[in-house]
Amino acid sequence: MHDNIRIDGGRLWSSLMEMAEFGATPKGGVCRISFTEEDRQARNLFTKWCEGAGLSVSVDKFGNMFGRRAGRNPDLAPVMVGSHLDSQPTGGKYDGAYGVLAGLEILRCLNDAGIETERPIEVVNWTNEEGAILKPMIGSEVYTGALPLEDAYAMATPDGTAESGLDQIGYKGTVDLWSYPVHSYFEAYIEQGPILEENELQVGVVTGAFTQQWYNLKFTGLEAHAGPTPMASRRDALVGASEAVLAIREIAQSIDGGRGTVGCITPFPASPNVIPGIVDMTVDFRHETEEALAEMTARFEARVPEIAKANKLEFELVPTVTIARVPFHPTLVGYVRSAAETLGVGHMDIVSGAGHDACHMAKVIPTTMVFIPCENGISHNELESATPEDCEAGCNVMCQAVLGAANMTDDLEFPA
Amino acid sequence: MHDNIRIDGGRLWSSLMEMAEFGATPKGGVCRISFTEEDRQARNLFTKWCEGAGLSVSVDKFGNMFGRRAGRNPDLAPVMVGSHLDSQPTGGKYDGAYGVLAGLEILRCLNDAGIETERPIEVVNWTNEEGAILKPMIGSEVYTGALPLEDAYAMATPDGTAESGLDQIGYKGTVDLWSYPVHSYFEAYIEQGPILEENELQVGVVTGAFTQQWYNLKFTGLEAHAGPTPMASRRDALVGASEAVLAIREIAQSIDGGRGTVGCITPFPASPNVIPGIVDMTVDFRHETEEALAEMTARFEARVPEIAKANKLEFELVPTVTIARVPFHPTLVGYVRSAAETLGVGHMDIVSGAGHDACHMAKVIPTTMVFIPCENGISHNELESATPEDCEAGCNVMCQAVLGAANMTDDLEFPA
Repeated sequence: MHDNIRIDGGRLWSSLMEMAEFGATPKGGVCRISFTEEDRQARNLFTKWCEGAGLSVSVDKFGNMFGRRAGRNPDLAPVMVGSHLDSQPTGGKYDGAYGVLAGLEILRCLNDAGIETERPIEVVNWTNEEGAILKPMIGSEVYTGALPLEDAYAMATPDGTAESGLDQIGYKGTVDLWSYPVHSYFEAYIEQGPILEENELQVGVVTGAFTQQWYNLKFTGLEAHAGPTPMASRRDALVGASEAVLAIREIAQSIDGGRGTVGCITPFPASPNVIPGIVDMTVDFRHETEEALAEMTARFEARVPEIAKANKLEFELVPTVTIARVPFHPTLVGYVRSAAETLGVGHMDIVSGAGHDACHMAKVIPTTMVFIPCENGISHNELESATPEDCEAGCNVMCQAVLGAANMTDDLEFPA
Repeated sequence: MHDNIRIDGGRLWSSLMEMAEFGATPKGGVCRISFTEEDRQARNLFTKWCEGAGLSVSVDKFGNMFGRRAGRNPDLAPVMVGSHLDSQPTGGKYDGAYGVLAGLEILRCLNDAGIETERPIEVVNWTNEEGAILKPMIGSEVYTGALPLEDAYAMATPDGTAESGLDQIGYKGTVDLWSYPVHSYFEAYIEQGPILEENELQVGVVTGAFTQQWYNLKFTGLEAHAGPTPMASRRDALVGASEAVLAIREIAQSIDGGRGTVGCITPFPASPNVIPGIVDMTVDFRHETEEALAEMTARFEARVPEIAKANKLEFELVPTVTIARVPFHPTLVGYVRSAAETLGVGHMDIVSGAGHDACHMAKVIPTTMVFIPCENGISHNELESATPEDCEAGCNVMCQAVLGAANMTDDLEFPA
């Protein structure tokens, strides 16, 4: 119906660059961790932009922000579109910010064209997606009821709790979580992998997301002097941890499409001439299918005791984050695919290797995502890069899909 | 001449226990890092005890402390006996403190027996032996002229510099370093290894110390998102670092008597779902012979580039601390061996796996050490334990050897 509508790629790009100034790093990336001054500034700018676009802005009790553009029929549940403005400690300009600002650009574009939709459309900024503090995707997890608000408030940050963090930046809102029905949720994102680029395509039609299992793993041996302690007498926790790092790589490599990562490793007491007595580490396994993930984690859980025994160590292996395989809503996936076809944008179906707020939303309402390429597949890195052309193409595709949903008067079947 | 002299084992033990109250940890160990309040308190108590024993106390410009008991002939260079009062972050009660307090006990015992020696005897407490901050054995290194005072002053601590640290605890003294000749140096120590205990002997006659080579090793890859980045595309610095940890173990295990340790490992950016782009680590190799150490380090230096290449990483390998094989003075070693025989204390010759202040002293004056067993060979650990009987036996042996040196009117040939 509005096939001729095009978003303003230049405006979208300018917004991305302006937002990237908050937490800008010398290497061209962004460090905008939740509950910091940079987070506050980014939220303030987003509020200003929403108000400038005539949106009514609300903030819920966990700091999730919503900018609503009214629909023709105030009784219809809104379509939601967005992502997050927080970043990794050494993150890039596009991870999260692209989804929020593409949502904002769609609403600005509808304003410019004077287009009314049946349903309201809301652009959303979720609190703390990255998990650089707390755990990842906590804003949408709390919003969807998967995590009680009081539990989330109580979670420790380097300076206090999530609640005190929200208070500190002035974004502990008053609106109850998920206090009104939502029709559907869309999220645009950089792929954070190399597949679209390798296929020279501008858009990924995201059919679902990887299942994930995270752990905290602790090895305990005995700290002792590095000089007089013979190799055979040692109970070196770092040797065990190193064997675990390599076992995780080996397991992930042996399963087609598997991922296995150790991001954090902390030895104790961390003195150059003391054999580490304790090592704490994080473990992250992912796969497209539940079956393959289960095979990886079973092999890993069997290997850890072997590694501990061989090195005379104790171990504690605690599952932390568990994310089920997420299928996106076939009707919305179809909208995205059709939009790409209609607009003549090169596209392919793809499964997300990363978790996203969309994964929490997909459990409770019809949801889908749109991917665009990022240079060399690099993300969670200051080198993260996307082109203005791809940002524009992805936003145009999402604009058509969002319009399709916003003009549906019926609810979608859910689960599909 | 004074074969019947015996130190007071109960007083020595009480002094050890009282000193261990400064920085006492709940697990029974000691955390007494240089330039902290605990260090200051320990130094104050040592001063009080020295003054109580009639010793004249002086502090040099790097905070090294000397308590002198006059000799019959003020023109003769003193015999020095001591060690250090600082500890590892999770250290024990005996490492360092035993050597200082055994030295003090010998002087108290000579006072009680009314024995005059030809030479003065000085008990010494060296500044910052452990290397928990700065580098290890820096007090004796500065004292012996191996490190210029200004360079040592300028070294960074968590709170400032070594100079500001000394100022802060009030132990930046006024006495020039090594401002008078010293005849010989003795140091008593727990073995920090399992050999004496395994042989059921009370004293190790230390003939020298291991040669050491330390490095800082950095691997640089590319931080990237743990989910969408296929295993084959990764440049994971922690995988390289883990291979290095295991290579170091393998190299040290393959050389009889070799030691290889990674005490510190720090990934960057250290987020659970980010592949580490940088890892910094410390490396510590040791052996009794220069030849074997050279073989270990050559193999290691050849392996690091292979590991980097195989994992598509860059690396920087920087040698830091280098300690040559230290032979102790055969005359003094003979005094210790004879004393053990005369006193009927079970003993064996042994080589120190750890570095000690004695290793710096041995380069400039005749030096030796006396070892006593520690439980299970555990040191640099809060579980570190030694028996009152072994502490007493080691101190009695050292007392006889020190008396031998303190009654020599001639200098020893040096180098021997």
